[in-house]
Parts: sequence; C-alpha cells; structure tokens
Amino acid sequence: MKALRFDGNNLTLADVPLPQSAEEALVRVTTSGICNTDLEIVRGYAGFEGTIGHEFVGVVEQADDRPDLVGKRVIGEINAGCGTCEKCAAGDPRHCPTRTVLGIVGRDGCHAEYLSLPSRNLLVLPNNVSDEQAVFAEPLAAAYGITEQVDITPETKVAVIGDGKLGLLCAMSLALRSQNVTIIGKHPSKILIAENAGVKPLLLADVEAKMFGAFDVVVEASGSESGFATALDLVRPRGKIVLKSTFHGTPAWAASRVVVDEITIVGSRCGRFAPALELLTSGSIDVTPLISDEFSLIDGVAAMDRAAENGVLKVLLRP
Amino acid sequence: MKALRFDGNNLTLADVPLPQSAEEALVRVTTSGICNTDLEIVRGYAGFEGTIGHEFVGVVEQADDRPDLVGKRVIGEINAGCGTCEKCAAGDPRHCPTRTVLGIVGRDGCHAEYLSLPSRNLLVLPNNVSDEQAVFAEPLAAAYGITEQVDITPETKVAVIGDGKLGLLCAMSLALRSQNVTIIGKHPSKILIAENAGVKPLLLADVEAKMFGAFDVVVEASGSESGFATALDLVRPRGKIVLKSTFHGTPAWAASRVVVDEITIVGSRCGRFAPALELLTSGSIDVTPLISDEFSLIDGVAAMDRAAENGVLKVLLRP
Repeated sequence: MKALRFDGNNLTLADVPLPQSAEEALVRVTTSGICNTDLEIVRGYAGFEGTIGHEFVGVVEQADDRPDLVGKRVIGEINAGCGTCEKCAAGDPRHCPTRTVLGIVGRDGCHAEYLSLPSRNLLVLPNNVSDEQAVFAEPLAAAYGITEQVDITPETKVAVIGDGKLGLLCAMSLALRSQNVTIIGKHPSKILIAENAGVKPLLLADVEAKMFGAFDVVVEASGSESGFATALDLVRPRGKIVLKSTFHGTPAWAASRVVVDEITIVGSRCGRFAPALELLTSGSIDVTPLISDEFSLIDGVAAMDRAAENGVLKVLLRP
Repeated sequence: MKALRFDGNNLTLADVPLPQSAEEALVRVTTSGICNTDLEIVRGYAGFEGTIGHEFVGVVEQADDRPDLVGKRVIGEINAGCGTCEKCAAGDPRHCPTRTVLGIVGRDGCHAEYLSLPSRNLLVLPNNVSDEQAVFAEPLAAAYGITEQVDITPETKVAVIGDGKLGLLCAMSLALRSQNVTIIGKHPSKILIAENAGVKPLLLADVEAKMFGAFDVVVEASGSESGFATALDLVRPRGKIVLKSTFHGTPAWAASRVVVDEITIVGSRCGRFAPALELLTSGSIDVTPLISDEFSLIDGVAAMDRAAENGVLKVLLRP
C-alpha cells in the first residue's frame, strides 16, 4: 500500500506492506488530515520514524475481536495503552507510560491506505457526520478537552492566543461554553472564521496594556515563546493559562508573576473523542471553514509543503 | 521608635516616628521573624523601601474601630486590600490590585517597635500559643495554604524540594494530610527536623532516575531554577507542581513535558492565617525546632546577616 513515511531525514511516499496484527482492527483510510505535529515530526521532533499522520476517517476491513465493526465508518483515539498499567486500568491510556501513539510514537500513522488500531480505540460515525467533518475529531477533542481540565462557565473571560487550526478550534469550541471568548491572532482572514462562530476577534497588534490581567483563562495555542509571555500578561491573578501547543523550546518565563499572582498553568494535550463527536453530530460546531486544501495521498509530500505555508489551515489527504 | 529600614541601598536601624493612622490599629511588636523575602528585599527585589518585616506577634495598643482588641495579643494578615474592589468584596484582599503588603509593598513592616494594620487583619492569639510559635503563623499559612489549592489526601505522594524554612513548613504541614511526604534537601540537619514530623528525608544527591514521574504533587520551595527542573522530573503525568518560592529569574523549562504529560503548575504565595493558627493552637505542628537564633531589634542588621548564613533557619527579633 501507499504510505507517507519519514525516515528521520526525508519524507517520501513509499510502498509498504499492509499493517498486520491479529489483535488489532484493520482500517481502510478514506480521509486524513495534516496536523502541525506532522510538520514538526518531519522537522525531527520526537525522533519518530515511520508513517506519519494521526487524524483520520476510515472503514473497518477486519476486526477479529469485534466483527460487528467490519464495514463501519470510524474515527479512532490515537493513544494505544498497554491495557494493564495503573493508567490504563483507570481508563486513561492517553497517559500509559508505554503507550504508542498513531503516527507519533512507536506506531505507523494514518497518511496511508490502511492503518491498524485496537478495536477499543474506534468510534463508529453517525451518517450525518461527513468525512470532512469527522477528520477534525482528533484536534477538536484536543481543543474541547480543555473544558474537562478547566472550569468554563458562560461568564468566564477566555482569551485564545493563536489563530492556527488549533487556536481556532479552541476558540470555537470554548465559545460553546462561554460568551466571553476572544481570539488573538495575526491573520484577519483566520480570526474571521472564529468571529463567525461567536468569538470576539482581536489582532495581536491591537493588544493593549489595559487588557493585561483581564482574562480568567488564557489558552496558549500559538506554539511560540512570545505567545506564552502574552498569556502571562493577559491572565488575571489566580487565573489559569492552558498550554495547548507543544512548543519545543525551553522558554524563559517570569516565575515570580506566577507565584505572586498565584497563576495556574495547565498542560493540555489530547482530549476524549466522544464529546468532540457529539459536537460534530449535533452540528454545534462547523469545522469545514478550516479546510484549506485537499490532495491525493500520492501527492502527500506536496500536501505537506502546502500545509506548511503561511496562512494555510487544514489540508486533507485522500488515499 | 526603632525600626529596621531599607532605603534602596542600605539597611540600618533608624529612629522613626510611631505609625499614625486613625483608620488602623496600632500594634506594639513583641516578636518578629526574618523571612527570606526580607533578605531578598535588601538585595533590591521589588524596589521596596521602608521598614522591612512581615512576620510578627504584638499587642494592640490602639484600635478606634475595635476597642475590644486593645490589650490583646495578636498576629496579622499582611495584605491590606482597598476594601471595595471585586477581590476585596469577594473576601480576597490578598489579590486586591491596589493592596499594600506589610514590609513588602507600600507599607512599613514589623521589624520595629510598632506597626499599624487595619483591625480586620488582626487575629487574637489563644493563651496556649507562645510568641515563638505564633510568629510562624504567616509562613505556616503560606505553607498550609497549598492544601486549599491542591487536593492532598492520605495517599497523595508529595515531594517537597528545598529544606529551608519554607520547605520544612511545607513538608511538615502537608504531612498532616498525607502519609507520603518526602522532603528533598541538601542539609542532613535540616531534613532531620522534617523527619521528626513524619516526613521521609531524601538528600538531593540521592535522587535517582527511578523516582522520576513518581510523585503526584511536587512543591518547589528551594527558590532555585534547578529546583524547578527537578520538580519537572519528579512529577507524574497529570501531576501538579506547586511553585512556592518567588525566584526572580526567568527559568527556562521544558514546556513540551508540561504539555505532553499534561502537568499543572500552581503558583502559590500567601495562605489564610486562621487554619495555620488552628494548627498551632491544637499543637498539630511544632515549629520551634526551626528557630535558629534570637536577636534584639537594635542588633537587627547583625540578625539579618545571621539569617543569610548557610544552614541558618528562623532568626527572631525582639524589640
């Protein structure tokens, strides 16, 4: 089968054998989405080698332990835990210390014609959710997962820093909880997408000192060190900063502000798929304005280049 | 009256007028304690000028709005809020944006013969709590305040990094909640004090890689950048780091560990006095082993030098 693979140095479209695992389900991929993490992997982050990609929709071709899944259209949780450790036993394979992660850690990903995952990771899609919507389940789960870590009420003043895919999904999904969500970005065309979903738009250049300390919750989704500094400026005493982007530097920060104003910083990575799928099923959130482009899998390398361009949001791949 | 004052450059024992405020209570100081913050102020932190000191016990000499307090032995909350803002209205003057703080921000402190504070800041001491115990109310409140920010159960595995005064008080007071508190320090004689209070002692040099990720909660009370790095090593995925020390650098940190392992960092400064006073009144915690030395206020400059020496814990002053 065709697969978009990174060998530690180069990204290529390769011919590889089908995934073979008696214990896992075989899924034929129908759509996959390119995430910034994919871009970072091909820059050498995390030392991953193999088939990249972790956002997908597909159809189950084989599932020995769950034959009822065969033929079903599915999405899938990307973390595969050992199934026996303390974390897995507590229902949290996302933090299993020996987990593999689709296309990120120790497991081939979804920019391919087929993938395999444990059948327990799969969620069957309702008919009214299209492939183009469902492929956003993973990043939407990550965005909406913030609401399971930090209390967001209709009155909570939220600022989201960053108008990339993740920032937009954070702002749009948090706006389902709070009527006071502001997105701060550099691109008028991008923040307009969030504005159409009820989010207040604010260009980074228009951030003023009077806004400092004005937000209960600030989500850092820009992935830049300056974004974290802005978050520290904007959050109120005893407020919370949600670190959503995996930036790989070691940012310097004003630790004394965190202590004196008793600020809480919450690291946030993956979220549960089920609530995200509910949002898509109910039509509460429209993710389709985030689709910038679509490529055939065989043009995967070009698709990755396109996804890395400034101003481009989600790029989809079709095997 | 005599007062230990910092003018931005030098620390001197000066003769100054008595505090005069019709709206505040006048307190005659009987004992005060030297805190690391005092040492940092005379190094130029926070730009404070005036009488230093914020840990005290005294007797109320005058209190026009609370004549019942006159003659009473008291301790006092060090943050004085405006009384009208949102934070003050919510009962949290500790985060009033225009607050003054005894001997730290815009208000003369307690290393003096007299001080003034709003009468609402004062707590009357029970007879069975000595001056030497009560003078620890402020740092003990700061230490025990962690339990109001982070859930600590008998099973919670806690590590406290730092065996100075604050680290010891954190470890000893958290050991009242959890049976799994470890203190990590460099000084065998200091960690022994915590060991006598039921805390497991561990020398920093004996920290091993197998302990990485083993603690639910790690309290950083060493005030050093390396302490924060150690905290990041020791905390488990989804665990919490409590930043208790106001270190004034801008430490670099591995932000990706915080995001990937969804770690929460909680800034923590002051605590409420009432629960701390309860601990002292009930005899739940014995703070007296932390007293290293006692000086007369007139030898305050020498006392500050002594407090800055390696291995010295609490130094008390007597006007």
